[in-house]
Amino acid sequence: MEHDLSHSISLLARTPASLDALLRGLPDEWVLRNEGDRTWSAFDVIGHLIHGERTDWMPRARMILKHGEAQAFVPFDRFAQARESQGKSLAQLLDEFARLRSENLAELRAMNLRPEDFARRGRHPALGTVTMSQLLAAWVVHDLTHLHQISRILSHQYREAVGPWSKFLGVLQCAGHSAP
Amino acid sequence: MEHDLSHSISLLARTPASLDALLRGLPDEWVLRNEGDRTWSAFDVIGHLIHGERTDWMPRARMILKHGEAQAFVPFDRFAQARESQGKSLAQLLDEFARLRSENLAELRAMNLRPEDFARRGRHPALGTVTMSQLLAAWVVHDLTHLHQISRILSHQYREAVGPWSKFLGVLQCAGHSAP
Repeated sequence: MEHDLSHSISLLARTPASLDALLRGLPDEWVLRNEGDRTWSAFDVIGHLIHGERTDWMPRARMILKHGEAQAFVPFDRFAQARESQGKSLAQLLDEFARLRSENLAELRAMNLRPEDFARRGRHPALGTVTMSQLLAAWVVHDLTHLHQISRILSHQYREAVGPWSKFLGVLQCAGHSAP
Repeated sequence: MEHDLSHSISLLARTPASLDALLRGLPDEWVLRNEGDRTWSAFDVIGHLIHGERTDWMPRARMILKHGEAQAFVPFDRFAQARESQGKSLAQLLDEFARLRSENLAELRAMNLRPEDFARRGRHPALGTVTMSQLLAAWVVHDLTHLHQISRILSHQYREAVGPWSKFLGVLQCAGHSAP
């Protein structure tokens, strides 16, 4: 399926409510535990999504329109949430993510991108030349990557509890697929 | 983490709303496409979850209480949804899943399971002896397996659209982890 702005927005607009329905009010045993040494909890992931709303997706879309390939994107800080989420509750993070996402989608709609804008190019610090449509599609799949991850983190807490069922439960076979 | 009834219920109660927020009203391009030959779409997965509510989890819990290991569970029909979802809309399926889940959790609470009940045994047609607590934990992780799968099915539709970003997006590396 080719990138389509309205399809992308339809998914991007739903992620905050889906994560909210899944996580808000869940016991801390689900929300704060991770998959072991140096891995993330569901709480950490929401902080990471917030950081992306602030510093990654829309700032990069603006940069493509303004500078094209002349200026590389600022590298994404994948550990910022440890600092930025400190002292906050999960409920606060979920609210913040929903608010930022909604503001970003309003700005994206207001950009009024024309068909030719989707082919405009920018420069990723590691990946090289990328296009506006690739950036927007990656924003969607980034949400889904973290939904995929959260379902795995939560499952991990019941890895032993399911007993012999573990071999029938696909998510327990997933060892994660982190970026190289 | 050991199985805990209130922890299990807290997650089981949230799955329908989380999937509803993610999928209801999404364009058919997201909802009806699968990952290729003989794989499932998000629509198919919701039908499968409905079939589980009807025939799998609570009927098996009842059977453990009533028959113990004397009688094996009825095997789960993993393809029933093709028949049962026919002619229904995604909105109808989401409503049906939410209603059945809510009824099942009401029944589970009303069972008033005591600590000793969680060790009670049943007989799975393929896995052999299993306990009540393993059954309830597997119900939770089964939900999460399908959330994990849906995030992957949706991502698959943008596999080409993300261009060079694909190597940073974990969900696109996931080849699935189906039961043997």
